[in-house]
Formats: sequence, C-alpha cells, structure tokens
Amino acid sequence: MSRVFNFSAGPAALPEPVLRQAAEEMLDWHGSGMSVMEMSHRGKEFIAIHAEAERLLRELLGVPTNYKVLFLQGGAIGENAIVPMNMLRGRTSADYVDTGEWSKKSIKEAQKYGSVNVAASGKAGGYTSIPPREGWTLDPNAAYVHICSNETIGGVEYHWTPDTGDVPLVADMSSNILSKPVDVSQYGLIYGGAQKNIGPAGLTIVIVRDDLIGQALPITPSAFDYKQQADNDSMLNTPPTYGIYIAGLVFNWIKAQGGLEAMAEHNRAKAALLYDFLDASSFFSSPVAIADRSLMNVPFKLRDDALDETFLEGAQARSLLQLKGHRSVGGMRASIYNAMPVEGVKALVAYMQEFEATHG
Amino acid sequence: MSRVFNFSAGPAALPEPVLRQAAEEMLDWHGSGMSVMEMSHRGKEFIAIHAEAERLLRELLGVPTNYKVLFLQGGAIGENAIVPMNMLRGRTSADYVDTGEWSKKSIKEAQKYGSVNVAASGKAGGYTSIPPREGWTLDPNAAYVHICSNETIGGVEYHWTPDTGDVPLVADMSSNILSKPVDVSQYGLIYGGAQKNIGPAGLTIVIVRDDLIGQALPITPSAFDYKQQADNDSMLNTPPTYGIYIAGLVFNWIKAQGGLEAMAEHNRAKAALLYDFLDASSFFSSPVAIADRSLMNVPFKLRDDALDETFLEGAQARSLLQLKGHRSVGGMRASIYNAMPVEGVKALVAYMQEFEATHG
Repeated sequence: MSRVFNFSAGPAALPEPVLRQAAEEMLDWHGSGMSVMEMSHRGKEFIAIHAEAERLLRELLGVPTNYKVLFLQGGAIGENAIVPMNMLRGRTSADYVDTGEWSKKSIKEAQKYGSVNVAASGKAGGYTSIPPREGWTLDPNAAYVHICSNETIGGVEYHWTPDTGDVPLVADMSSNILSKPVDVSQYGLIYGGAQKNIGPAGLTIVIVRDDLIGQALPITPSAFDYKQQADNDSMLNTPPTYGIYIAGLVFNWIKAQGGLEAMAEHNRAKAALLYDFLDASSFFSSPVAIADRSLMNVPFKLRDDALDETFLEGAQARSLLQLKGHRSVGGMRASIYNAMPVEGVKALVAYMQEFEATHG
Repeated sequence: MSRVFNFSAGPAALPEPVLRQAAEEMLDWHGSGMSVMEMSHRGKEFIAIHAEAERLLRELLGVPTNYKVLFLQGGAIGENAIVPMNMLRGRTSADYVDTGEWSKKSIKEAQKYGSVNVAASGKAGGYTSIPPREGWTLDPNAAYVHICSNETIGGVEYHWTPDTGDVPLVADMSSNILSKPVDVSQYGLIYGGAQKNIGPAGLTIVIVRDDLIGQALPITPSAFDYKQQADNDSMLNTPPTYGIYIAGLVFNWIKAQGGLEAMAEHNRAKAALLYDFLDASSFFSSPVAIADRSLMNVPFKLRDDALDETFLEGAQARSLLQLKGHRSVGGMRASIYNAMPVEGVKALVAYMQEFEATHG
C-alpha cells in the first residue's frame, strides 16, 4: 500500500492513525461484536461514543457550558438555510459579510427567510482580502452578523475576531475549525461541515449559545430545529453515527498532538513553507493579500496558465493529488488541513521548485 | 473476534463481507492511496463509486428511467418536512394514511407546510393492522397520498400496493426498502433512511418521478430541493460520501445473493420461523394481525411482562442483542433485516423455546 499526499479541499486527508483504528475496529468495536456502523444510536455503546466525541470537542475548543454542541446533517449548504430559520428569532434581517464564494452562497440562501444586509464585501478587490472591520456597516437591530471564517475557494481567512457588540456573531468555520484555538464565547453560533478537519462528509457540527435557541421559524424542519435537537442530544433523528465515531477519533488524535495550540503551530509552519516559496518565486504567485492569507487553503497561479495541465500531470505522477483550483477561480489550490503532514508540503514545494527550474 | 446477532431496529446489522471489504479498503481504495472518506466528491474515484451505487440500486429495484435517484441527508425525519416542501406542488393539502408511530410523525411534520387529510387510520385497533384500501377517504385534489410501507415500531407492513389513481403515491420505505421486489412505477416518490437495509445512518435515499419535481416551496433549503439536487447529481452539497460507498457495497452484496427475489425468500423464511413459533407458543405472542405482519420488525410480548428483564438478560448472555421493544409499545422486538442470517433467527427461537420451558 502506498498512500498519497491528498491536497483536496474536502472531503480531505484524514490522520492515518485514525484510519488504521477505524479499519481495526470495523467488525468488532471494543469487544462489542458489532461495527460502530451497526450499533443502535440508543444503545449504551454508541451513547458512550457520542458522549466522548462531544466531551473531546468541548475540551479542545474550550466550549463554555452555556453552549450546546450538536451533531447534525446537511453540511454548510444545509446550514445556509438552517441558520436563518433558527437565528432570525423574530427579527426581520441579518448582516452578512461577503468574502467570497461561500459567503455568497450563504447570503443567497438566507434571502429566502429574511432580508440580508451585506455589511461589507471583498468583491471590488476580487475577494483577495477580508474587508477591515472599520468599514463594516452593521445594523444594531440585525438578528446576527454572519461571516465565513475561511473561504475555501478564494483562500482568505480571518486572523482576528470581529467585534459585533450585542449582535451575535455567527461563523461558518467549515474549513478552519480546529485548526487553531478559538474563543467560542465571542460567537453566538459556530457551524461547519466535518469534511475538512473533523471527519467524513455528512456530519455537521453546530455550537450555539443556549439563549439563542428555541425561536425557530414555524417552517423549520424538526430535524433542523436547534432547540429540538439540543433537547434530544442530537438524536431527534438518527444521527450520522459512523461520522460521529470518526470525528471522535480525530478529536483524540488532535489532543494527542498537543491540542489546538500545537495544531496552529503545525499549520503555520506548513503554510509558511508554501507562502515563502510562492513569494520568492517569479513563476508561481499567490493572489491573496498577505495579512488575510488562509493557512488551510492556498490558491496559487502559474505565470503561464498554458502550463497548468503539465503541472497537474507532473504532480499526479509524484502522488501529489487534487491540486487543481476551483473552477470558479482557476489556477491551483493546495489544501493543507490538520491531517496534511509537513512532508506533504515539502514534497509539493520541492516539485514546484523543480517545475519552475524546468519551465520557468 | 466474536460477532453477535444484532436485532437492532436501526442502525442495524450489516453483511459481514461488506464490513470486511470496508476494513480492507480503509487506507487505500483500489490502489488510489486514499480512503474513500478522504476522496474529493468531485474526483474521478468518488464519481465512479457514486455512479456504481446508483446503477446497482436502479438495477436491483428496476427503477424506470423517468425516475431520479438521489442520495441525500437527514433521514426519514428530515424527509417528513422535505417531502411536503417538494411535493405539495401548488396544492394545499395531502392525504396521509396513519398506521402507527412513523405515520404520526410524518403527519405532524407535514402540517407545518399544508393541510393534511388523514385518509385512514389504524389507531382504533391499536395500530395492529393496515386499514384496508376500501375504507380510505381519499381527496382527488390531494397533492399526494403518503404511506409508511413498514412501521418499524408497531410491526405492520403493507403486503400490497394501494391504488391511488392519478394522485401520486409517496412511501416512507425506510425499514423495508430492498427487502423484496417493488414496482417503482406505482409510486411517485419512495424515500428512506439508509440505516436498516442499505448502510450507515446519515444517508437518505430518494427515488422520485421526474415530472413531480421542480415546484418546491420557496422556503425549501437548496440542499433539500429535489430538482436542484437532481440537476447536480446529488452534489449540490457535499454528499455523505462514505455512506454512499458502503451502500454500494451492500447493493453489490444483495445482487450477489440473487437480488430482491432472493432477499424476499430469505426474509419470508426468517419471519416464518419466528411467527410460527410465536403462534404455537402459549407464553410468547405477536400482537399484529396475521395478514399485515412485518417481515422486518417482529414485536412480541411475554405472557408475564415481569419477566421482560430476565428475558433480555438471558438474550444478552447468548449474544442476542437489542431485543427490547420500543419504549412507546413495550415488550420485545426482533428486527430481522436483510443482513440478519437465518442462524440468528434460529438462535433466537431456540432461546425463546428454552425460556418458555423454564418460565412458561
């Protein structure tokens, strides 16, 4: 067996020890005689797995006790509807900050449920930077302020937390959750699909301050009503049990690596390798403003895009996979989430150096 | 490793060869160097896995070409809202047949989106039989007629397909899909959570006639709009990729067993063993009308319910697990889906005989 370096934006590389443990336990979890996939979600074995996953997530992120942790389904695109359904709370509008493709999707979907005030936008600059907080036009009566903490496609990331006063801050953290410490108490709601830093696609994490739930719109499906799910330990419907199990293994792996401080250091080191190379190169370049560069998703361009296919073929031949940029922006993108080892980034940089020497 | 006989109502036992293959392929699917869990849903490997799962499902069920097959999220409880959102199609009301706990949940949720006419109910008889078609009060202007083809909790199952004329028939088949052949063309929509006969919890199957989609209510989340998902091959949001992979392995296993005719024979034989014993026993009994007994979920009662705990403890000691009945009905329940081998049912009946001899 030969494993590759998988730079996919998500679903993405998972820690190899997690996959090994999952393989070993596939037919018989801890002497239960069952796969986790086969367990009743109401049986004592799965209830323990679920509770342990939640406990570890709370420990890693330091989630305050007045926040609920929910394990749901539908991913961030589902949440784009579910968030306004739950969070409008009798108000008529919400503020959204537009930093790229994922913000745009969130805004469009939210408009089905209320009015949206775009408080700031990076559109004029081609979404290569995060609009500074000073320029945001916030509505003090907004139900919440929504941001996307890391734009997976454009590669811009908040390295600061916006102050929104008494209006709850809501963040789509799909692509940078658990990549660094976060002060959860500064947010009203954090959500994200699992398929970057957490586990398999199909699991959605929601962390919500408990005073904000319980006022969902009447048209909210019960399965997506935060209060109903919180009251039922995320088991109003059958949860994605296997995904929760894998997430628990990933949380445990992060803890064993030293937790989120250690992850942040690991991720800064990997990103620095790549950005330093890009900035020194006259052939490859990063389109993103230095202060707002994502440590998770690194878009880059070749000086001559006629060489894009040649670059991708050479990468594939070296088992460096999924480097093609998103179709909406073109170029290349290296996603280097928690589970990407530094060796993967070194191998990529070495290949880019070699490619530049040959074609530059 | 010692595997148990798992009579859970869902998530439920999976075929052992499927779990073995999943374990073997966990770190490296077909020489790709990746786990299926790590694959981009837009990469060629996963697109092939997804297409093969759909092809096998279409082959097994004989799905006509004018039906879409969708792989979604949220389970049947999610669909309880998603179905009316998509299927009301400008009409104001839908007909629902009430056959037990799952029908009741569907009815309650649908009332958020339109008016519900309960066309027939098994309530007066304690939900121990399916109301005969002759007694249904159908509305010719209804958007659809909804049934639950198998009540997982009460243990009643349709062994016939209701004729609803020009009004589309919608069926929650969560707990008996793929247990027997079905004439899909008699239905407008079939849906079900995967966690009984298909694969892991978190995957929802939707099979829908293509002329019925495209008129979702404006408040329908994009992730749950059948038309948008059909137009995007179920990839409008990131699908539950690992669940789809496991489902494909299960479909392949069913095909290797001889397909749905063979499954039906296997399931009839298992159910007959259990029901014949129950009917011959003076200590155990089935509460369900003979004609409407489920071949998947077999509720049964002990003559003296003070012995329930003793029965469950003895079962556990023999590795016969998850036999406790649902809290809403009490007693016992043996769920004997496709993956339950006949040996499991024989072991259960042998234990019941022994228990009756000792305590009867």
